[in-house]
Formats: sequence, C-alpha cells, structure tokens
Amino acid sequence: MPPRYARPRQPKGASTETEIFHAILDTGLVAHVGFVAEDRPMVIPMAYARSGETVYLHGASKARIARLDSVPVCLTVTTLTGIVAARSGFHHSVNYRSAVVHGTARRVEGNEIDAALDAITDHLLPGRSGEVRPMTAQERKATGVVAIEIAHATAKIRTGPPKDDPADLGDGTWAGVLPVVTTLGTGIGDGDTPEGIPEPASLAAARRRFA
Amino acid sequence: MPPRYARPRQPKGASTETEIFHAILDTGLVAHVGFVAEDRPMVIPMAYARSGETVYLHGASKARIARLDSVPVCLTVTTLTGIVAARSGFHHSVNYRSAVVHGTARRVEGNEIDAALDAITDHLLPGRSGEVRPMTAQERKATGVVAIEIAHATAKIRTGPPKDDPADLGDGTWAGVLPVVTTLGTGIGDGDTPEGIPEPASLAAARRRFA
Repeated sequence: MPPRYARPRQPKGASTETEIFHAILDTGLVAHVGFVAEDRPMVIPMAYARSGETVYLHGASKARIARLDSVPVCLTVTTLTGIVAARSGFHHSVNYRSAVVHGTARRVEGNEIDAALDAITDHLLPGRSGEVRPMTAQERKATGVVAIEIAHATAKIRTGPPKDDPADLGDGTWAGVLPVVTTLGTGIGDGDTPEGIPEPASLAAARRRFA
Repeated sequence: MPPRYARPRQPKGASTETEIFHAILDTGLVAHVGFVAEDRPMVIPMAYARSGETVYLHGASKARIARLDSVPVCLTVTTLTGIVAARSGFHHSVNYRSAVVHGTARRVEGNEIDAALDAITDHLLPGRSGEVRPMTAQERKATGVVAIEIAHATAKIRTGPPKDDPADLGDGTWAGVLPVVTTLGTGIGDGDTPEGIPEPASLAAARRRFA
C-alpha cells in the first residue's frame, strides 16, 4: 500500500509533498520513536535511516525496541531552526521542520539486516559503511533491526517572522526571529587513530548533509 | 509523591542525579511528547517548560494535546552533541544527553495557566514574558495548558570517543567524534521593529542558556 501523505491541519505551516517529507527525514539527526508498552506511551530517541518508504531502527537484540513486531509505531523527526519572538506571549512560536511517520513495526531478518545497518550508519556519516570492516556474524546476532513501512505521514514546516496582532505592531517592541543553527564541527580523532591521517570523506559528507 | 529518578540500564551512559536531570530538561529546546490515541502511539514535538517537578505544555484549546487529561504521557528531551565514528559499523554511536519523563496529564485551570504560559515563553527566551504585554482574556480562553507531574524519570548521557573492539584498534582507520553544535545566532528583527533598537535581553539570555 503506498503511503498516505496527509494534508496537515495547519496549511500555513506544512507541506504535503513527498520530496519535502523525505528531505526532512534525510536531514534529521535523531528520531523520537513512540510505541505503547503496557498501555503506556514510551518515547525513545534513536538513530535511524530511510530507504524508499521504509524507516529502519536498530538496537541490542534483547532491547525492547528491537523486539517490536507487528505493533503500531510513531516516529517523529524534528529540526528546530529558530525561536520566534512576538509582541505578545500568545504569538510566540518556533521555526522548525518536522515529519511524523505512522506505521507498523516489522522485525527484519536475513540479508535485509545488513543493508539496514549500513543505511543507519550511512545516514549520519554518508559512505561510512564503506570505510570500516564488514560486520561479523556475532555482531549481526547481537543486533536487532526493525523496519517501519510508512503508512501515513505528516510534514510540517514553519519559517519566517512572528504573526502578531495588528494592534500590537506599533508598540515599539523588538520582535523577530532568533536563529537556531546546528553545525557539525571538525572531527576529533581518538587516541588510536594514526597521527596525521586525514579525516575520512564521510565526515565532510555529513557536514554537507546537515548544513 | 516525589518523582522516582530511575537508575538507567546502561550505567556507563547515564546519570541518576536530580540536578543533571533538571539541567537536561532546562537546556533542551523541544520536547517530543508521546501519548496513546485510539490504541496507537502519537509523538508530537512541542515547546515546554519545567517548574519544580512539573512540566508544562500548551496548545490551542481545541487541539488534542491540550485536551489530554488523566492519561499517561511520556515526554522526551534529547540534545545531540556528537556523531561517534568507530572502526566497525557495530560500534558507531552518538553522543547525547536525554531525559525521559513519565507522568499523567492534568488539565491546568485558573491562575496556574498564566504562570505556566509565562514559564513556556521564558524557557526558550528567559525573561521574555516581562518584555511583552500581558495576556488578554480572549487569548487565555484560546489556550489549553497541560501539566505533567514527573512520576518517573530517566536521564542518559553519552560522551567521549568510540569504544572499539581491541582487535580493531591497530587497523589504521580514522575513528573519533564529529561534534554536533547547536548555536543561537543574532536576532533578526521583523519589519515592524523600530530601526536601531537593540536586541532585547531575553535573546542574550537564551544564547547563554543553550550555549
């Protein structure tokens, strides 16, 4: 079933286009994954990757998140881009882009495991899976991978200045946007990295992706 | 009932101290709020504020989030601080701090509404509520405020370089940390802000809080 990209409730702050939705997922650093555990909600920050209309998550194979199977999951990725200071508390807001994905968890088996884990590594560090040794059988056994096929998705974007009440506009108050900027710095090699070797290409690729 | 600060599952990546837990909440920009809607999980990014052992959220009074009452809620605040590049895909990780709060939603009424809304405004822009006009009765009516008393909370922190397998350490691969830095820029006044007036103090206070 093709995913349903919902027309959001607030037309001013949202987009319905698949490409924009994918871009929000692909340029997000962390997903907040929600599921129901004993009738209570649980929200966990996780690394992830999108591949087509599937989102992959991973965890230790005994972890609760890695054992989710055939249960509904909500996965939300948010990037904050500004704090919106208005002339009244009421109209304060934030600039952001977010994607909310609803789907059903599916435990991943077989060769799809390797592809999913490479995708998760390469989401944060594009190309990194090709810079390191292959996974061992023991590591594969210790890792659980969950797929969420995107069944329903909502993208929201807010940009620009505050929307103040017309009556407040002449009051002399400073109002506008305080930009929130996320940057990736220079890589800090660990103590076992040979001195003088350059940063791998995946770090520059990450800086380009998340710029 | 005093909140229960859980000893996390991964001792190496976590802290149990109340002060650290509060600091994670107080220096986070956005909360991901999870609740159960028709047996399905829902995760929504939201502005918030902590006041003692209570976390406040707000929304349009008719919005689903603002009408939550006497239902379990999970609220997670995550700040990513680095991407950890190891010598194997398996040991890749992220540096971060996160707080997961479990509690029960309570619809806020009366004078607590005003204090909660000021707290939410002042969380992102410390002191901003004193820089703008007071809330009107109409605005108060249009806003729903939800309190979550912290019943159970978990803090996790990961810092530092990758933890590689000893056998991989001599392989000549670059491994280390790519820092993720969130900064607040210079405020951009909107078209109705009088020319030449300085940035309000709340913007500098925000830069100090989230530095």
